[in-house]
Amino acid sequence: MQTVQLAVIPGDGIGPEVTAEALKVLEQVAAGRGDGVKFESTRYDLGAERYLATGEVLPDAVLAEIRQHDAILLGAVGGRPGDKSLPPGILERGLLLRLRFELDHYVNLRPSRIYPGAVSPLADPGEVDFVVVREGTEGPYTGNGGALRVGTPHEIATEVSVNTAFGVERVVRDAFARAQKRPRHKLTLVHKTNVLVHAGGIWSRIVDQVATEFPDVAVDYLHVDAAMIFLATDPSRFDVIVTDNLFGDIVTDLAAAITGGIGLAASGNVNPDRTTPSMFEPVHGSAPDIAGQQKADPTAAILSAALLLEHLGLDDAAHSVEEAVVADLAERAPGSTRRTSEIGDAIAGRVAG
Amino acid sequence: MQTVQLAVIPGDGIGPEVTAEALKVLEQVAAGRGDGVKFESTRYDLGAERYLATGEVLPDAVLAEIRQHDAILLGAVGGRPGDKSLPPGILERGLLLRLRFELDHYVNLRPSRIYPGAVSPLADPGEVDFVVVREGTEGPYTGNGGALRVGTPHEIATEVSVNTAFGVERVVRDAFARAQKRPRHKLTLVHKTNVLVHAGGIWSRIVDQVATEFPDVAVDYLHVDAAMIFLATDPSRFDVIVTDNLFGDIVTDLAAAITGGIGLAASGNVNPDRTTPSMFEPVHGSAPDIAGQQKADPTAAILSAALLLEHLGLDDAAHSVEEAVVADLAERAPGSTRRTSEIGDAIAGRVAG
Ligand SMILES: CC(C)[C@H](C(=O)O)[C@@H](O)C(=O)O
Ligand SMILES: CC(C)[C@H](C(=O)O)[C@@H](O)C(=O)O
Repeated sequence: MQTVQLAVIPGDGIGPEVTAEALKVLEQVAAGRGDGVKFESTRYDLGAERYLATGEVLPDAVLAEIRQHDAILLGAVGGRPGDKSLPPGILERGLLLRLRFELDHYVNLRPSRIYPGAVSPLADPGEVDFVVVREGTEGPYTGNGGALRVGTPHEIATEVSVNTAFGVERVVRDAFARAQKRPRHKLTLVHKTNVLVHAGGIWSRIVDQVATEFPDVAVDYLHVDAAMIFLATDPSRFDVIVTDNLFGDIVTDLAAAITGGIGLAASGNVNPDRTTPSMFEPVHGSAPDIAGQQKADPTAAILSAALLLEHLGLDDAAHSVEEAVVADLAERAPGSTRRTSEIGDAIAGRVAG
Repeated sequence: MQTVQLAVIPGDGIGPEVTAEALKVLEQVAAGRGDGVKFESTRYDLGAERYLATGEVLPDAVLAEIRQHDAILLGAVGGRPGDKSLPPGILERGLLLRLRFELDHYVNLRPSRIYPGAVSPLADPGEVDFVVVREGTEGPYTGNGGALRVGTPHEIATEVSVNTAFGVERVVRDAFARAQKRPRHKLTLVHKTNVLVHAGGIWSRIVDQVATEFPDVAVDYLHVDAAMIFLATDPSRFDVIVTDNLFGDIVTDLAAAITGGIGLAASGNVNPDRTTPSMFEPVHGSAPDIAGQQKADPTAAILSAALLLEHLGLDDAAHSVEEAVVADLAERAPGSTRRTSEIGDAIAGRVAG
């Protein structure tokens, strides 16, 4: 009997609804297996609601508890847009990024494929199946920098992107290893080396170095602006993209859009060294406008649970969840208005079968 | 008789070919006018070729000469990808960005519309007609930062985004003024305030401040990742976008892609105070693979010349060039293989008419 200790952070808005469906599917996985994998979840109420009620974002004691788990499942975090009592960055920096940084989630993994039945906004997207390996613990996301003479005509605000050989090399090596395991063996570095010469230099030098260890992986490079064009006009050219924290944020949202929407985009904040629990979350936000109405699509949360299973080494279970999602998507009627729980039930039902 | 002194930098690759067509159209504009506007151009050979031959990028004396002109027309700059004798950044930082920074081109203007006949990769783009006002003289493009222990396992490389109230306010005010003149009166700030809290703070505070001077302009805000999604799924929602130098680079290439290609995207590097010559250039690169073969589409260069005319106050001439382009595009046969000069002739011919 393998017991997986899950820390569950449902979060705000539609977070709790979609997380419930992801957990439902995980329960079904456990029930359907002869080998007795069991999930035990502890729920942590963190997010806008808690902050607004108590002023707490992520108390150290809570972080210490979360750290004891095998993995983290997160729904979505974020309050109402424009809420003045919730300054931008409080939850993002204090909760989401703090978890990624403290738990050293240096591989932010974001697969993109056009699932059968999914509707791409592109007229002719072709066969799209790539994965973005986004650096998760440094780059422009460090919060380094500051501001002087704030609010005056002489204000100056800086933001410092920090890139270390240690940090870049480990994520680049992970991306190469993934490319090697995929059928096309291709890796594309996305950066802006012609302008960000310092940060671009370290990224391209390290990619060149690590490439010598993976002679069967074909490497190319695109400036982030050119990557935009290819994502819109020829997304099937991509296999593995490796990029920094900020470019990764931008590229993956565009990737989600062109593959049929943010309702399907899953992500893993992974520590491949397994010294800390990795965290799995849909790419979408908390969508407070439709919260509590059972209107949210839980598919991205369920696919994030599949990434969690894969990370735990339960590859066959991960595969069966993904297959269940594919089957469900293929049969979705256009304009279908199934409730959140109905979609979860349908997918869980297929996992059972 | 108004004589416009043009500094022409044809540059590399397809640059000279497309610039020739833009000049052809300007000649036609001059010939067709009763009021005797005249263009006198001085050609400056700058770019990869000159650098590889002489080691010179932008000699101070050349910059001083260029500064004496009324406007600059630039083709494209950049050598063969992967050319080891041309390290990334040399031309971009040393020539293109140096011109933008030294000539204080703080408004990087990039209109995006789907022209009649243009083929968008989006299945259903809707009516797209927006303009990106990209900051051109600070942000992550300053080159601030550096690297320590380069090439060792202990390397650290930083890149500093510098944002000043002076720099942000003037470009934001310009963007509001443009929004006020457009029929929809709408301005969208694109940034990443929830992560880049220092830089994001100054941008959103200044937008809020300047907004009070333009009560009839509706303001909204999007994180850059969300902007990706809207550009791919609902680009008609945009009117004026104001954003920083790096986000602007990314957003405008995606905008070019979804509106039918980089072959049509024009840009102006504008100093609205007119204390220096503004510079007009297509968004596309030098495309060395098709250089010298008359395969390049000069439309983006010609539309950049239209922006130049507008900047010089020759609004009716600018309009007639744009109309000529629209008429030409509307009649382009799909898969047409007209030569660069044929397209230029066709558009120039319509300007005459
Ligand atoms: C909410 C925000 C901090 C986050 C990010 O920028 O990483 C989100 O956009 C994401 O992509 O997970
Ligand atoms: C060539 C490069 C320096 C430039 C930029 O990043 O600004 C280009 O991409 C552009 O958009 O004009």
